[in-house]
Amino acid sequence: MIDFRPVIFVLGILLSILAVAMTLPAVVDAANGHADWQVFAAASLLTLFVGGAMILTTRAGWVGFSLRQAFIMTNLAWLVIALFGALPLAFSELELSFTDAFFESMSGVTTTGATVITGLDHAPPGILLWRAILQWLGGIGIIVMAVSILPMLQVGGMQLFRVEAFETDKVLPRAAQIAGGIVIVYVFLTALAAIVYWALGMTGFEAIAHAMTSIATGGFSTSDASISHFASPAIDWAVCGFMILGSLPFVLYLRAVRGDVRAFFEDAQVQLFLGVLVLAVGLVAWWLWDQDQVGPVGALRYAAFNVVSMVTGTGYATADFSQWGGFVMSLMFVLMVLGGCAGSTTCGIKMFRFLVIFATAKVQLLRLIQPNGVFIPYYNKRPIPNRVEESVMGFFFLFAASFALLAAGLGLTGLDFVTAVSGAASAIANVGPGLGDVIGPAGNYSTLPDAAKWLLCAGMLLGRLELFTVLVLFSITFWRG
Amino acid sequence: MIDFRPVIFVLGILLSILAVAMTLPAVVDAANGHADWQVFAAASLLTLFVGGAMILTTRAGWVGFSLRQAFIMTNLAWLVIALFGALPLAFSELELSFTDAFFESMSGVTTTGATVITGLDHAPPGILLWRAILQWLGGIGIIVMAVSILPMLQVGGMQLFRVEAFETDKVLPRAAQIAGGIVIVYVFLTALAAIVYWALGMTGFEAIAHAMTSIATGGFSTSDASISHFASPAIDWAVCGFMILGSLPFVLYLRAVRGDVRAFFEDAQVQLFLGVLVLAVGLVAWWLWDQDQVGPVGALRYAAFNVVSMVTGTGYATADFSQWGGFVMSLMFVLMVLGGCAGSTTCGIKMFRFLVIFATAKVQLLRLIQPNGVFIPYYNKRPIPNRVEESVMGFFFLFAASFALLAAGLGLTGLDFVTAVSGAASAIANVGPGLGDVIGPAGNYSTLPDAAKWLLCAGMLLGRLELFTVLVLFSITFWRG
Repeated sequence: MIDFRPVIFVLGILLSILAVAMTLPAVVDAANGHADWQVFAAASLLTLFVGGAMILTTRAGWVGFSLRQAFIMTNLAWLVIALFGALPLAFSELELSFTDAFFESMSGVTTTGATVITGLDHAPPGILLWRAILQWLGGIGIIVMAVSILPMLQVGGMQLFRVEAFETDKVLPRAAQIAGGIVIVYVFLTALAAIVYWALGMTGFEAIAHAMTSIATGGFSTSDASISHFASPAIDWAVCGFMILGSLPFVLYLRAVRGDVRAFFEDAQVQLFLGVLVLAVGLVAWWLWDQDQVGPVGALRYAAFNVVSMVTGTGYATADFSQWGGFVMSLMFVLMVLGGCAGSTTCGIKMFRFLVIFATAKVQLLRLIQPNGVFIPYYNKRPIPNRVEESVMGFFFLFAASFALLAAGLGLTGLDFVTAVSGAASAIANVGPGLGDVIGPAGNYSTLPDAAKWLLCAGMLLGRLELFTVLVLFSITFWRG
Repeated sequence: MIDFRPVIFVLGILLSILAVAMTLPAVVDAANGHADWQVFAAASLLTLFVGGAMILTTRAGWVGFSLRQAFIMTNLAWLVIALFGALPLAFSELELSFTDAFFESMSGVTTTGATVITGLDHAPPGILLWRAILQWLGGIGIIVMAVSILPMLQVGGMQLFRVEAFETDKVLPRAAQIAGGIVIVYVFLTALAAIVYWALGMTGFEAIAHAMTSIATGGFSTSDASISHFASPAIDWAVCGFMILGSLPFVLYLRAVRGDVRAFFEDAQVQLFLGVLVLAVGLVAWWLWDQDQVGPVGALRYAAFNVVSMVTGTGYATADFSQWGGFVMSLMFVLMVLGGCAGSTTCGIKMFRFLVIFATAKVQLLRLIQPNGVFIPYYNKRPIPNRVEESVMGFFFLFAASFALLAAGLGLTGLDFVTAVSGAASAIANVGPGLGDVIGPAGNYSTLPDAAKWLLCAGMLLGRLELFTVLVLFSITFWRG
């Protein structure tokens, strides 16, 4: 028998935090004379009641977490928060169906950014703030999870980062201290983004909402037109910069604060990530310029923004790149699954996995040529343990298999080919928009059938929790113990 | 320095075989009073002259093959045969450009089946026969390579089959004997198919041409309408059956001949392959029936034929399944990369790789739950060596990466998204048709820009030679020795 008490206890704490967060939109709506403040207040009380009850009934009689409890807790945490986070959306004046509210909430906490709401520009401020808060909490949640829980679970090669966090940071030896430091960095970067956005012309409210969803690489906006609403090159470039900052390994910020700024530039993930961005932006900008769609400066601006938005999985848009032709569509389809660096708010495959695979593939080619030679793959100047190698390769396969199943499943609900294929990739990589007319940068998910929305919710959760964390629950051995 | 003499010697032998094969279409054209017989005769003489010269200048002074020579020989063999195989196409009355002739020839020898020729129904018989012969030679070539050379090269997990061929077949201990047996089986199955097709209503010529391209899972037809030209359910089902027979491991036929028929049904690859077919055919048939597009019998017939054609990478068509909606499109996109069993004429990822990955993924999930447990993955009741596991996973990654690069490259030549993405998958998996209006089952490749055709040629070669065999040539270490 699995002891669920520690699981329920932690869930209770998370729900209590969520309940407190709900009071912010309540205050904003009340200050703006919107009746929705009652919805937020009621949802907050209900969530606090449930969370409090969970804490009180399970606060004693257990010590620490077993591996199985940690797996169950991680899955339930994202599910339960998405569920309670959907409450204000379901009962607000938007009158979303339960499916739509849950989809929007899951898209928020997984920092995906796919939306079913149209008319954002006229939506009550409480709802807009709540969507931003869901992404912001989801963002910090995933970073803390990536440095504390995932390495312990050893899913998809994440154990690489246990070694790194604990062996090289002698000054910050414990996960709790690292997590605390990361929260401070996260808050600081968000505040910085808000100030910059405000200085460049956003209203205070818009600046705060977009700051939260930029650093979280989430992509929810306060306008249906997303960032193109502001029609400002300076804002485009600033948002671009903060999306990149949100995609770097947050542990490195801690090192930078302690004076080790070089760590950023010596990190293999950061190098590859920036290299990929420069290459992809260059290609798209050249293509746009060559096609005479815009001048060179405009081409660079639109290319940089939309490529960064897709690679980091943020999902903001400043243009409908579905109109840029087959090359950009195909490239974006590939770019959207790449993701940023592990230990950041981005999702997708992530740079370290490509580095591990490159190193392994290189060693395999060498072995083909010299079958009796001894070759060892390296990551960040350290040998890659055999199990990490296997986990990373297994991740690639599961990613491809999940994508294939999800795409076929979405097709089964009646979606067209481009929507099904790009929607599947976008959900698993937690990007937000897909490709094409329906769910592309100029569209949204509102017209999809309910079955497709639920499938996409499952895809978002699967992607956010690095696949293995969810799939392990479907093994009989797991439950048999 | 690499000694190229053994490489050139073998290429000379292969070219001589090709030259002899060219006399067949010459005879057929001459008998039908087509002036193209001169083209075939001239091409045959030229090929024989080059091949003979290669044999004569390199026939002595070397012993056996080194690993590097084997890699170079394998790559050059497919390239050189595609090049000389293009000669009759380039100079025939079809007046193809060099690009088109090479594309058609490469599509032939790699058993892909993508075509740039329209008006097949009125094309000279010599050309039609030559296209069938290219696929037929490519098909037997790849099976012999899979049992003799690839296991030695240890590419993509193919070493699994060295063990199998040499340890379990005590009665046929040497590769040459196995290869000889396989050629006999191949010829027998082709003859059987031709007789069945003829009995069901094809002309003798059509029966022979389609028999060759069915067993080779190639897909070239003598009609623009492919198999739907015959409008016969019986022919549909017969072709379906022979495509499946061409996708089974040919080593098992040898065992069956020696009385061990059960080996077929106990082989894990065969079980998975047939299981996948039943599932996919069932799903598509149910979908077609449900959509009221055809009655249940017709639904099963069209579903079975087109699913088998895509999974086996044959590429015949009896319907334009691009019109069957998003579900079938998405599913076909996934199915086209699966492939059949290793050691057959099919390409794609192939069943044994999925079995290795399933076994490995299962072990990884078990390790997540019990980090200190000892778990071993099995394939066909034998433990999978660690290196095979790594090779197979590396193959998956390289497959995905090659697909992504090729799709982006095709987009760069100006193709639309569906054509670029499905064309890339179709080329690497050696299927033939892609999806959509341009290169889908109802279209062909003639309108594509030359750059796209060359990229697709590279993709076909890469896929046919199991990726690693080609990519190893791009490593510096390979050439430095």
